[in-house]
Amino acid sequence: MKKIPDMVIRRLSTYSRVLSDLMEKGIDLVSSDELGKLSGCNGTQVRKDLAYFGQFGTRGVGYRISELKSRITKILGMDGRWNVALIGIGNLGTALLSHEGFRRHKFDIIIGFDVDKSKVGKKFNGVEIKDMSELKRAISEKDIKMAIITVPVQSAQTVANILVDAGIKAILNFAPVNISISKDVFLKNVDLSLELEGLSFFLTHNEYQNNEFNGSYG
Amino acid sequence: MKKIPDMVIRRLSTYSRVLSDLMEKGIDLVSSDELGKLSGCNGTQVRKDLAYFGQFGTRGVGYRISELKSRITKILGMDGRWNVALIGIGNLGTALLSHEGFRRHKFDIIIGFDVDKSKVGKKFNGVEIKDMSELKRAISEKDIKMAIITVPVQSAQTVANILVDAGIKAILNFAPVNISISKDVFLKNVDLSLELEGLSFFLTHNEYQNNEFNGSYG
Repeated sequence: MKKIPDMVIRRLSTYSRVLSDLMEKGIDLVSSDELGKLSGCNGTQVRKDLAYFGQFGTRGVGYRISELKSRITKILGMDGRWNVALIGIGNLGTALLSHEGFRRHKFDIIIGFDVDKSKVGKKFNGVEIKDMSELKRAISEKDIKMAIITVPVQSAQTVANILVDAGIKAILNFAPVNISISKDVFLKNVDLSLELEGLSFFLTHNEYQNNEFNGSYG
Repeated sequence: MKKIPDMVIRRLSTYSRVLSDLMEKGIDLVSSDELGKLSGCNGTQVRKDLAYFGQFGTRGVGYRISELKSRITKILGMDGRWNVALIGIGNLGTALLSHEGFRRHKFDIIIGFDVDKSKVGKKFNGVEIKDMSELKRAISEKDIKMAIITVPVQSAQTVANILVDAGIKAILNFAPVNISISKDVFLKNVDLSLELEGLSFFLTHNEYQNNEFNGSYG
């Protein structure tokens, strides 16, 4: 398998959501052009993205939606559920603990950590909060591979180091700071300003754009 | 100007961040290949994305970083600051009010709204919270065009309608629900599960992937 660009994975997730919507509407087949349009790109992009992973669909007929959806689900590793640890039970952490979208998309935050003794031992939305000192043992016992960092900027690097030491292999980081990390661990920074820059572009150029992405995904 | 795909805008923001980092390191020139690699894509993609907006760089020399950075900033409409309204002062809303990344990237949340009387009239991180009933007048007085929705799923559509009625032209929606909206307003949904699916893909395929995106942007 070739190195897959990050944007391809992102679009696969988007295709998957669009396909779910189409299935709910009782539709069986979709063309790459339709799928591309509904996903905010185009048919060429869809065909190119899928080509990384083999042969899909029938020329002149399109994709059988249920089959394509199930193959993309498998490619994304989303055919099971994922257990996730969350570190930093501030406002953002608390919000994510009760984020409806995660559970719906098969991500279960099953444990939280904080240094604040007033939070340790409590449950937030059914999730127990443990002290940072218990992190290594708890994560190894529960065999968790995925973690979310929602600590303040100045603690993010330290927390990332502890997570890697505990055996975490993929980290989603919400702290707006660059973290250095071991090469075999996947780190993804969520940059919320980047989403707002998309709005800025639209407001600056909206005389040129008609808003095809209205209500779209991603 | 042609219709610009959403992903292109997203990458422009990423290029802009990479260019800032290079400038801070005192570097003057960058090739499209280098810029692509640092941005998690490749040189062809960089050249293709920039081609939407005109002529950039010199063949065999590369891009003058300060010039490219300033042109991308202008394209994104980020050569000034943006005033933003935030609706829904729950955990997520409160977290975003104090999000360091926004102010650093020239987005100022200058007003918040909630229906909860215990929050109305208070200040969170210096931002005054007003009652929803004051929204229309306040947004029109302050001439705000950009808003962030952090209300619960069941209120998101109602809030979006009120925002459009108040003259808001671009909305960032954190509620995990599909909102329908007038065609001349730009709506962007933040789907945090999509970020986790990137982690899932990596954990499923990491025997094939070496993690070039480690510590990368976007």
